[in-house]
Amino acid sequence: MQVENLRELLIAEIRDIYDAEEQIVDELPDIIDKVQSPQLKSALQMHLEETRGQILRLEQVFNKLGEEVEGETCAGMKGILKEGSDAIDDAEKGDVRDAVIIAACQKVEHYEIASYGCVRTYAKQLGLNDVAQLLQQTLDEEGNADKKLTTIAEQTVNVQAKKVA
Amino acid sequence: MQVENLRELLIAEIRDIYDAEEQIVDELPDIIDKVQSPQLKSALQMHLEETRGQILRLEQVFNKLGEEVEGETCAGMKGILKEGSDAIDDAEKGDVRDAVIIAACQKVEHYEIASYGCVRTYAKQLGLNDVAQLLQQTLDEEGNADKKLTTIAEQTVNVQAKKVA
Repeated sequence: MQVENLRELLIAEIRDIYDAEEQIVDELPDIIDKVQSPQLKSALQMHLEETRGQILRLEQVFNKLGEEVEGETCAGMKGILKEGSDAIDDAEKGDVRDAVIIAACQKVEHYEIASYGCVRTYAKQLGLNDVAQLLQQTLDEEGNADKKLTTIAEQTVNVQAKKVA
Repeated sequence: MQVENLRELLIAEIRDIYDAEEQIVDELPDIIDKVQSPQLKSALQMHLEETRGQILRLEQVFNKLGEEVEGETCAGMKGILKEGSDAIDDAEKGDVRDAVIIAACQKVEHYEIASYGCVRTYAKQLGLNDVAQLLQQTLDEEGNADKKLTTIAEQTVNVQAKKVA
């Protein structure tokens, strides 16, 4: 696909992040199964539900743009999830693995923060205010999910992981 | 490598981000060559120099930890850079390609913000204050680089890209 203007770039990036969200929904349940901390487990379960809502929101965006609902392989998310899953496999079960899971999920969140930040700005600059608003909602959710993970890491998981000999 | 405690996790993540930084130093000159906006070109050139300094800072961290200076393939950065380079190839030369380059670089920055945020926190919790301080310096630089890209996008590049028919 040749991208020739800001509207085509918006669509290309929406296809990329749509695929990224689908990758997350596929992968996250396996990650959640490996979590020890009940607080972390519940945060990630909540974020999985939120992600399903974000996918529906992207489908609304495709509709508003008059574009087919279709993703395009997101190589960035593939790499991030592969790295995360290898790191989880390499970690000792328990608190340390929980810390690894938090780091992996924060890399996922930050990819999404960068991506939604860009598409929200494109939509705004194109005067597509309803699209921009939908994307801003997701951007806010990603930011909050990231902050929640930082709090869990700093207050509980890393503190426990530090105690591991 | 089996990661059994927070210190081992710190080292594993430092090896990952060290490789990521080296990938960036390899890739960024080619990206800079493709930039049209003088403001964006100079921001990325400055960030390339900054990245070289960040690599030296990581080498200091390895030394302080008494560990060999050695990276470990960062699959996340590989995926992000592949995605970026494909998107740049797909974009029409000029303002639109500049907007694509900004998006690609912001994904790189956010990966680093997530990663340095984690390692800075691990170092702090391990009481390695000099290591934490070095990592915080880089984290601040990455945050500033990201903000600068947002400003360039919003004030010039995307505005120009919007005008492209």
